[in-house]
Order: sequence, then structure tokens, then C-alpha cells
Amino acid sequence: MERQGILYVVSAPSGAGKTTLCDAVVDIYPSLGQSVSFTTRQRRGNEVDGVDYHFVSRERFDAMVAGGEFVEWAEVHGNCYGTALATLRQAQQQGRDILLDIDVQGAAQLKRQHLPAVFVFIAPPSLDELRRRLAGRATDSEDVIAARLENARGELEQAHWYDYIIINDQLDAAVASFAAVIAAERCRTRLVYTTLRHRLGLPAAAGIQE
Amino acid sequence: MERQGILYVVSAPSGAGKTTLCDAVVDIYPSLGQSVSFTTRQRRGNEVDGVDYHFVSRERFDAMVAGGEFVEWAEVHGNCYGTALATLRQAQQQGRDILLDIDVQGAAQLKRQHLPAVFVFIAPPSLDELRRRLAGRATDSEDVIAARLENARGELEQAHWYDYIIINDQLDAAVASFAAVIAAERCRTRLVYTTLRHRLGLPAAAGIQE
Repeated sequence: MERQGILYVVSAPSGAGKTTLCDAVVDIYPSLGQSVSFTTRQRRGNEVDGVDYHFVSRERFDAMVAGGEFVEWAEVHGNCYGTALATLRQAQQQGRDILLDIDVQGAAQLKRQHLPAVFVFIAPPSLDELRRRLAGRATDSEDVIAARLENARGELEQAHWYDYIIINDQLDAAVASFAAVIAAERCRTRLVYTTLRHRLGLPAAAGIQE
Repeated sequence: MERQGILYVVSAPSGAGKTTLCDAVVDIYPSLGQSVSFTTRQRRGNEVDGVDYHFVSRERFDAMVAGGEFVEWAEVHGNCYGTALATLRQAQQQGRDILLDIDVQGAAQLKRQHLPAVFVFIAPPSLDELRRRLAGRATDSEDVIAARLENARGELEQAHWYDYIIINDQLDAAVASFAAVIAAERCRTRLVYTTLRHRLGLPAAAGIQE
């Protein structure tokens, strides 16, 4: 009997290094997939439908919203992005662990629905360091950087309800911490007890869902 | 401001490899100490008072029991063993992480007192393997092995209320899992949020004790 898949919900303010960290842990754990979202935006360059996103029309997206198929969705710059409940449920039932890279608002929507998930927040070591990292992206104006910093502050204030906070000071240490969270969650009693009891012929436990 | 120390309570049936695993993770994390218990038994060979145990008289031990100084204690073969609340509180306040190697009954006493602790259960991969490991200790008779196996079964049935279960099939993998649990628990929001908020000037959060 296989254990259920684990959903890791990962949020961070822009500039905290979330994408780098997620890519690094997916490299470490080949069995760890990334959740594929639905979007109405146009496919770019070498993006692949079903891999980078599920690209759908606005009508299809609206119908999915109306049908309650999304656990969270948002409209950004005129394009819609959403995470389908079916995507998460399927991975869970098939015993696949997945990362869902999502902003704080989206994560809060998931949290309110009490979906079984591990919430991980990636934080910068300081606001000065975050400013330096944002300013390093030479394409952004002072105004854009200031707006991002203000936005980051608002997101950081939400970190307190996540299960884990990884402060991304040194990248190697942050990757190691994130990898440890993934390895540790795989040892959680609610996932391991059923395997153990089948192997050892133990009775079912009241608190453990099978 | 330093974070609080973490107490890891570790139990396992005899033969599961608990001592080897605990020694291995203490080697990996030099800042991780082992909790020192009080005992009334005689000091043996090169045991050091205050390092291996706090060796005390039966009168002193009884006075500590009467004074409610132990979070758990037990009498085994005429000798008393106990864990002092002060030992755990001091480590917590000083930000020292400690391992407490303790049997299931002792761990259950701690659990009932709602002390902040991470409960880790070390399990053998199967009862056959446990029998092999116990039989490998040539000093024990068949009867002793049978009694230990029966006892192990009773302890394994309690694994369901621990936070983590590490199945010790391959030692290296089990050490890695245990080390991951320790690294992951250090990223728990209740420990990290206060550090983060001081660094970033965030507000206190209602759910986080400081």
C-alpha cells in the first residue's frame, strides 16, 4: 500500500530566491514534481502545454471558476491563473509529492480550505538585502523597486501562519534546509504509520486516516 | 534574540537501533546535546557524574519525586531513573537542542504534560528483522528474546501518537532521515518567526509565543 502524496505550498516575496530554491530541491528529489497551473495567458517561446501550464481559453477558465474547480485563482495584468483541485487530489492519491509555487494570497485560499499541505515560506535575510537583490535587476525603475519592497513587507507579515520559514541568507544552507523539510515530512507519522502497521501487523490507530 | 531550544524525545523498541542513530545525529550536529537523567543506580566503570547520569541517593531521588521535580520517572530492576523538568526547561531557555532517549511509557508521561517537544519513534523494518537483531545478541536466551519481541510489539502499537516515525531499514538512510527531522524542526515557524520579525521590523503575530 502506497502512502499519500505530499503537497508543499511555497510562497515568498519577489527577490527572496524562491524559483532558485524550488529548482534546487526538485533536482535533489527527482520524484518531486511541480504542480501545473491553468492559465489564460498566451504560450511564450518554448513553453509546453501541460508542462509549464495548462493553457486554456478565457471561456474554459471562467467555466472552471463557475464549476468550483479551482482551489485558488487570480487575475494578474488581465491574465488568469488557477490551481485545480483535481491536480492536487490526483497527485495525493497517486502518492506523488508536488511543489506548488504560489503567492501569499493563493496560499491563504488553500489554507482556508483545509487541504492537507505543508506550507513553506522563503524569506530574505533582511529588507536591505531584498532591496539590493531587487535593484540588481537592472530593468526595474526606482518606483517599481519601492512598490515591490512595500508589497514584500505585506507578504512577510503573513509568514507567521506557514508551517516552516526558510531564511535564504546563504543559498546552500537554504537549499539544505528546504531539502530537510521535504525529507522530514516524509517521516510524518500520519504517512508512515500505515506502512509500518501493515509490515508489522499492528492494529489501526484512531487518529490516523488510511 | 536567541530562539528556544528544541527537545527531541526519542523512543524505540529494543533492537531498533536507537542508540546508534542517536549517536550518529549527535555527531552530525555538535550543538545537539543528550539530556542527562537522574538515577539511583551505582556508577559503573568510566561513567561520569553529570555527563552519563546525575547519580543521586535513593533519599534524594524520593525527595525529588515528592517535590514534583520529575516530568517522568520509573523504577527498573530496583533502580530509579528520572528526567528533571529543570533539565529540560534550562536547555529550552538557553536555546540548546537536546535529545531525550526514553522508553514509550516515559515519553507518554511527557506527552500528557504538554511539554513542547518533538516525538520521534525509531522502528525496525519488520518483526522478523527485529527477531534477527535480538537473536544476534548471543547472550540472551530464547525466552528473553520472546519476551523482548512481545514487549516490542506493545511499544510499536504506541508509535501512532509520535510526530515522526523513522523505519530503520538501512542505517545510512535512517540517519539521514533523523538528521532531516532535526534540520527541519529548526525551520519551524514558531521558532523562526520571532528572529525574522526582529530582523525585518515586522509586527508580533498572535499565534507565536515569544
